[in-house]
Amino acid sequence: MQPIRLGLAGYGKIAQDQHLPAVRANPAFELVAVATLGAPCPGVANFGSLGELLAQGPQVDAIAFCTPPQSRYALVQQALAAGKHVLLEKPPCASVGEAKALVEAAAQHGVSGLFAWHSRFAPGVEVAREWLAGMTLQQVHIQWKEQVRKYHPGQDWIWQTGGLGVFDPGINALSIATALLPAPLLMQRAELVMPANRLAPIAAQLEMRAGTVQVGAEFNFDQPIDDELWRIEFRCTEGTLRLDKGGAEVAVDGVRQWLADEGEYTLLYRHFERLIQNRASDMDLQPLQVVADAFLAATRQVGPAFEW
Amino acid sequence: MQPIRLGLAGYGKIAQDQHLPAVRANPAFELVAVATLGAPCPGVANFGSLGELLAQGPQVDAIAFCTPPQSRYALVQQALAAGKHVLLEKPPCASVGEAKALVEAAAQHGVSGLFAWHSRFAPGVEVAREWLAGMTLQQVHIQWKEQVRKYHPGQDWIWQTGGLGVFDPGINALSIATALLPAPLLMQRAELVMPANRLAPIAAQLEMRAGTVQVGAEFNFDQPIDDELWRIEFRCTEGTLRLDKGGAEVAVDGVRQWLADEGEYTLLYRHFERLIQNRASDMDLQPLQVVADAFLAATRQVGPAFEW
Repeated sequence: MQPIRLGLAGYGKIAQDQHLPAVRANPAFELVAVATLGAPCPGVANFGSLGELLAQGPQVDAIAFCTPPQSRYALVQQALAAGKHVLLEKPPCASVGEAKALVEAAAQHGVSGLFAWHSRFAPGVEVAREWLAGMTLQQVHIQWKEQVRKYHPGQDWIWQTGGLGVFDPGINALSIATALLPAPLLMQRAELVMPANRLAPIAAQLEMRAGTVQVGAEFNFDQPIDDELWRIEFRCTEGTLRLDKGGAEVAVDGVRQWLADEGEYTLLYRHFERLIQNRASDMDLQPLQVVADAFLAATRQVGPAFEW
Repeated sequence: MQPIRLGLAGYGKIAQDQHLPAVRANPAFELVAVATLGAPCPGVANFGSLGELLAQGPQVDAIAFCTPPQSRYALVQQALAAGKHVLLEKPPCASVGEAKALVEAAAQHGVSGLFAWHSRFAPGVEVAREWLAGMTLQQVHIQWKEQVRKYHPGQDWIWQTGGLGVFDPGINALSIATALLPAPLLMQRAELVMPANRLAPIAAQLEMRAGTVQVGAEFNFDQPIDDELWRIEFRCTEGTLRLDKGGAEVAVDGVRQWLADEGEYTLLYRHFERLIQNRASDMDLQPLQVVADAFLAATRQVGPAFEW
């Protein structure tokens, strides 16, 4: 079978760190073109815009979007209208309305779409799913605390509206929770801390419910680097399963479990490959909708100004 | 045919002003019970809670919810689980997640659900729909400006989270716009003014798009009483249609059109009756989702404190 000819839209940190190695290691894909305003990607045709890539570039079957989410909607529509399959780095776009419109457009154009919630492919997530199947889940507690200067150095888009602030990492936790919980995740209370000079929150406390399960979350985007934490605890009548390091580690009642780790983006692109083969889509907007509900329900307090 | 036996949950201003007269004037419905913590409704059985109404009251086929939206979700689930058809005064609940869960629950229980966007039944809306069918729509401009002290005297729930503030009337405009526009309404920019002592906005400016149509909105909740305005202008290549007074009046290029007015709530309950007869639902969550997207995209400024 011919490989899927792939174009990358956006060639920033996440594209270079994660997408490029995952694509190059997967023989089902062939990276043939990149659209970027920054440094070019070596070894492939580079273009200044997606429009140029589509009009003048080598033929592509699919586009993976790694541009900031705020301006992504029109670009994705452009790719869909050209009949390309699309993979969208998280968050997929800037609003629930855009996400729903993209789901409909992908179906209408008969192509495969993937909202790439990469954390769902962390090795611990499937282990947790199997373990939870036999348990009585009572409470879930999420702590997702990292240092924004480490992962998004100087990336101002993350503080602009649509950039989500601390929900940019937090939505990864929500993508895992929504994948594992037995009922829709409903917002009860949300408290956001907004830096005095920014438009997006730097910290959040959430109280949610999924059926009878209480779900709490603490997000922090200014955590000391030596104290970072990406943890979800599933507390059941029969015991507790803890995901750590964003799902890379699992412990049951404190006992570390062995995990085969193939890498989130490796599995993500394998999933994209299968979707294209099966002419199917996987465009779950629930994580983004939970964030929108948090903003809708939130009380806000102003915190200290944030500088890089 | 036997009339539909109806219970009212909540017996505040909107229930007394609108629901009661519409129900009493429609022979397809028989109001048999009310759940309220306030003054009782004369002539029917009154109960202190929905639970008591369902457990001890006369048999009902349907429940109309006029309680504040924040605490409504669990009550509606209770009614659905009891096999009752449900009508939900707008906004239907406190979050997009709750709205989606209610849509699924109604389908699962095999009953009819209606998210009651009453403004869609204003007499001008159908006239506008027919007129727009032959036109090239370019721009929509919404001005929705009223005095909160007149319509919601002392109702603190409207300033609490989930109460939506100025979006409580504004969502009526959005319910009309979403019903008439040819494409989903996508948020581009939102500016909210928050009273220093409240959790919900008192004014908003929105820039949206629906396909190629630019849609702007100005909402104000502290408009002088003699200057209130509920107006939507549909600007087409061929001319302009203006809805005024929330859709009660229509003018085309300045020429007032004649309208037969049966009353929004009269038509709303007729719609509910047909849905029940046809075992169908009409639970459109787009207006609430547009509001959530506005909160997600918004820049906020703090305005003067609001006192009643």
